[in-house]
Amino acid sequence: MNKRKLGRGVTIVGAGMTRFGLFKDRDSKDLFAEAFTEMLGSVDRGVDPAEVEALYIGNFSNDYFARQSHWAPLIADVIGLCPKAATRTEGACASSALAFREGVFAIASGFYDLVIVGGVEDMSKRTTEEVAEGLALAAAPYESRAGFTFPGVFGAVATAYFDRYGARREHLMDITIKSHRNAPLNPKAQFPFTIRDAMQAKAESLRKRGQPVPDWKDEKDFLRDPGVNPMVAWPLYLYDCCPISDGASCLLLAAEPIARRFTDDPIHVIGIGQGSGRGFHGSSDLTTFEATRHAAQEAYAMAGLAPRDIQFAEVHDCFSIAELIHIEDLGFFKPGEGYKAVSDGQTRLDGPKPINTSGGLKCKGHPVGATGTSQLYEVWTQLRGQAGARQIPQADLRFGAAHNLGGTGGTSTFTILERR
Amino acid sequence: MNKRKLGRGVTIVGAGMTRFGLFKDRDSKDLFAEAFTEMLGSVDRGVDPAEVEALYIGNFSNDYFARQSHWAPLIADVIGLCPKAATRTEGACASSALAFREGVFAIASGFYDLVIVGGVEDMSKRTTEEVAEGLALAAAPYESRAGFTFPGVFGAVATAYFDRYGARREHLMDITIKSHRNAPLNPKAQFPFTIRDAMQAKAESLRKRGQPVPDWKDEKDFLRDPGVNPMVAWPLYLYDCCPISDGASCLLLAAEPIARRFTDDPIHVIGIGQGSGRGFHGSSDLTTFEATRHAAQEAYAMAGLAPRDIQFAEVHDCFSIAELIHIEDLGFFKPGEGYKAVSDGQTRLDGPKPINTSGGLKCKGHPVGATGTSQLYEVWTQLRGQAGARQIPQADLRFGAAHNLGGTGGTSTFTILERR
Repeated sequence: MNKRKLGRGVTIVGAGMTRFGLFKDRDSKDLFAEAFTEMLGSVDRGVDPAEVEALYIGNFSNDYFARQSHWAPLIADVIGLCPKAATRTEGACASSALAFREGVFAIASGFYDLVIVGGVEDMSKRTTEEVAEGLALAAAPYESRAGFTFPGVFGAVATAYFDRYGARREHLMDITIKSHRNAPLNPKAQFPFTIRDAMQAKAESLRKRGQPVPDWKDEKDFLRDPGVNPMVAWPLYLYDCCPISDGASCLLLAAEPIARRFTDDPIHVIGIGQGSGRGFHGSSDLTTFEATRHAAQEAYAMAGLAPRDIQFAEVHDCFSIAELIHIEDLGFFKPGEGYKAVSDGQTRLDGPKPINTSGGLKCKGHPVGATGTSQLYEVWTQLRGQAGARQIPQADLRFGAAHNLGGTGGTSTFTILERR
Repeated sequence: MNKRKLGRGVTIVGAGMTRFGLFKDRDSKDLFAEAFTEMLGSVDRGVDPAEVEALYIGNFSNDYFARQSHWAPLIADVIGLCPKAATRTEGACASSALAFREGVFAIASGFYDLVIVGGVEDMSKRTTEEVAEGLALAAAPYESRAGFTFPGVFGAVATAYFDRYGARREHLMDITIKSHRNAPLNPKAQFPFTIRDAMQAKAESLRKRGQPVPDWKDEKDFLRDPGVNPMVAWPLYLYDCCPISDGASCLLLAAEPIARRFTDDPIHVIGIGQGSGRGFHGSSDLTTFEATRHAAQEAYAMAGLAPRDIQFAEVHDCFSIAELIHIEDLGFFKPGEGYKAVSDGQTRLDGPKPINTSGGLKCKGHPVGATGTSQLYEVWTQLRGQAGARQIPQADLRFGAAHNLGGTGGTSTFTILERR
């Protein structure tokens, strides 16, 4: 692997995102405008929007979901950017991580100094069946033809992992329980409650309707109740799966030489990696994603860091099993050891390697095109010590990372950020 | 306008494309593989595909047209690129001009040395109605809601231009006749015939069927015959409109310092510009595209050139009127003067400013996502003196350019290439 580098440094000097959720009365333009406005307010010394030189916007399939394509100039219009350049990137669920990457290249190339990157997706205007159909378009054709939709793909991944390493359904529950502990601490989360909260709410609702309340012993016992947590694609159940969401997120990128005009606390982009995978049909091992391993190696080499140096990360937990696979592929834990680490509490907010402090896709939500830059929003917020109730308690946060996956492993990105 | 520059030079060292046309038995993977294979053969000293570091692929809406999204890794798989990075860009009909631009940035940034950029679209597997619906998704929502599809939009542009400058339908015919003169000289063209060829073929077909053959006096008289050239959206007729096509195109980009490893005759990227427009609802003048003017100014400033320095260009003639608008927006002719220049023969292959030597979108075809890089393929081919029968007769070709438009002016790019 060549050690790649950029001609000049790139920093993040502002970030904004909407709450994620189902917003039937708001379209992609409305959502992006809200994220953009929050971003403007986040720039410590302020920024004149007229200074922004270009936009990169990640979107998976508003063609399908919103019956409108060619979104980049529409978004540019809403934020007053016309006639400057606006480009859409698409890499399924990794669409806005690609927008981020292109913004980094555009600045590192010397062409631009100040660029907005972000993502948006508007999924709630269609039926669940239509959304499932739209999402399935991103599965490699071979998988769709074999009858797989996304839960089926990741169900097979879980089965393979269980078979090889002896993990069980209960280990996946540990991931869900951990993410749901972080979620109520994140005001942007679609599901801001713990599993214990859900348990109490369910009990109350049953009681109100005069129905018997099961004697759930603990969170896992609750998650074993098929009335609460029905099977989706064995061994994945409802609480193993991220939701359908609407939302937008964005970041303001500045060339290193001008970053201090905007803030004394810019966050530096020190490692970027991207890989492509061939999906199931080209994979000899379902318990690892080749694209992620490639992206991680590239980013680590560029940053001159090893997995142990990364203090915390957002990883792409479209399903609970995905988080497990990724924390191993990214080198945080050895193959087959990830599930034990999770069950030991190592990935909790107060553990040695916090994962998905935002609540992850599972709890924060997953408006496909918005997810990549929302993960970087979380890393930026944590590194700057602005995460409030969910701030990682470790002193001296310096290195954080974000991992975004598209499709069934077709696209993967890994980004390492540094606070100096 | 700032004068923008790149941290290091980028060159084109190879180019390939499929013939454009309707290929019902071939999908996007097949098409791209063919363009890629031709590209490999075009590299004077050869290239080992294993050296290629990344792919950028422009595609407008295979989600719609081929019921499959997330194409970048599928194409990467076909050309043996996995696990390296593959990114899709989308800007409607300018999708692969955006892929080209991102490849330029990625190399200029110092991250990569050797990148493939290209585009593909696979439109013929749907009915014409479905394709029209898919294309309409790229019209700004305001235009779709007002009942406009693409021919309607450009019909209105033509009406406004006629009203302001006194041009007539016959002037648009001069554009069509000129492009059809170039087409038979291009082995990649979907419609490789002149209007005179079409006239003879029509006469023969009528004669065979025992029907009377009209006494068409000349090409324009033929184009006035509604049995030959029916109205689509006044004042645009069938021969004013580009077709539905399948096809793929690609270029091999190399950092300037390594270009000579591949060829003694690399073509240098010396000006890139991109703009965004607000479509009809935000336009006070239908006879000009703000996005194109912005892109042109940016590219000219970077190259240190003026419109008169550009010896020939491919411009985005999705409709005949579009070619007219663009050659004025790009500064080749003054506003309101373009149609006179065309009728004077100035844009013919042997004129002082050849436009669309490839036959343009009208005759070469317009597989939406493949068009941008196919235009650059033509400029590359002409600059290197390899255009065969359609080679521009001017001696010492040095500067050529390509202009690509997306949607109803939402995205526009302008690229200036130099042979040194």
